[in-house]
Amino acid sequence: MSKLYIALAHYPVLNKLSETVLTSVTNLDIHDIARSAVTYGVSRYFIITPDVTQQEFIGRVSSFWQTDKVRLYNPDRSRALSIITITDTIESSIKWITTQEGMPPVIISTTAHTMDHQITFEMMRDLNLQPKPLLLIFGTGNGLAATVHTKADFILQPIFGREDYNHLSVRSAVAIILDRISSAVYKGRN
Amino acid sequence: MSKLYIALAHYPVLNKLSETVLTSVTNLDIHDIARSAVTYGVSRYFIITPDVTQQEFIGRVSSFWQTDKVRLYNPDRSRALSIITITDTIESSIKWITTQEGMPPVIISTTAHTMDHQITFEMMRDLNLQPKPLLLIFGTGNGLAATVHTKADFILQPIFGREDYNHLSVRSAVAIILDRISSAVYKGRN
Repeated sequence: MSKLYIALAHYPVLNKLSETVLTSVTNLDIHDIARSAVTYGVSRYFIITPDVTQQEFIGRVSSFWQTDKVRLYNPDRSRALSIITITDTIESSIKWITTQEGMPPVIISTTAHTMDHQITFEMMRDLNLQPKPLLLIFGTGNGLAATVHTKADFILQPIFGREDYNHLSVRSAVAIILDRISSAVYKGRN
Repeated sequence: MSKLYIALAHYPVLNKLSETVLTSVTNLDIHDIARSAVTYGVSRYFIITPDVTQQEFIGRVSSFWQTDKVRLYNPDRSRALSIITITDTIESSIKWITTQEGMPPVIISTTAHTMDHQITFEMMRDLNLQPKPLLLIFGTGNGLAATVHTKADFILQPIFGREDYNHLSVRSAVAIILDRISSAVYKGRN
């Protein structure tokens, strides 16, 4: 079974005008996504921002939850937040995995938009990743900049619900995609 | 196709000591769950709290997003938050649906715990709900009080991920369950 890594990029992402920007880290992106990641057996959750102040903010939140008192009070939350690694760029996350695993990960980018050559959740089932690890990249703001998709090995199809509305929060999108992948690729969920 | 309603209860729910308490409404429970609800064609999203100040808070947040200026700026968010109805009790939500639909809904409660006689996602597929609407109830805090499960027609099995960890945020749990239900019961998703 391939190891699964996820990354939440705050740069390079798009704003409403499709300009490439740096977004702010939000507290619940740290918590909710870490909790989903641990639930679905993700090896590590990278939070990516080049901004040093924002990196310090993430570090302060996650180290708070590792203090002895807090760990006793809420061990489940401590466990979730312990899988966070802060990096300055997507490339640094890839380098981290490559060093850890002895080989580079297969990279799959995500988007709320329909694009050319996207792979479906069903196609992911047939990807022969082993022994390579998998890195799934999620974007904040209005989604990942085009360069991220260009450099990825695959672009995952969007989540379509029942309506002409594809504006899930990134927290919800991560949860749904991890749930679908665990059945499509990793099996073993109910 | 049965109409689907969801409710987020802030009372009666449990705290860490399994006491029945009233929890506070959080801004992102309003936004994230409304966005997931619209994505999956939910008819109405009830936010339940008997506390008048908290009701006013929800009203202030959701009406802010219906003002003309804001609606122009972010129509997708306005659309999401327009499906919110605030009620003081679970019973009031049921009454609302009964009045609207001309018949009471089938009630399914949710939990992160394994309990007796839970229905699986697969079993939901075989439920013959029509023409009755369906109300799915989610709890904040440490989950719904036992009385809610007792009064429900069915209790849904928990989401199991890959690990011995079932501490998803309620926002993530709602997203995953709506996604699973849309394939299990309502079809038509990718």
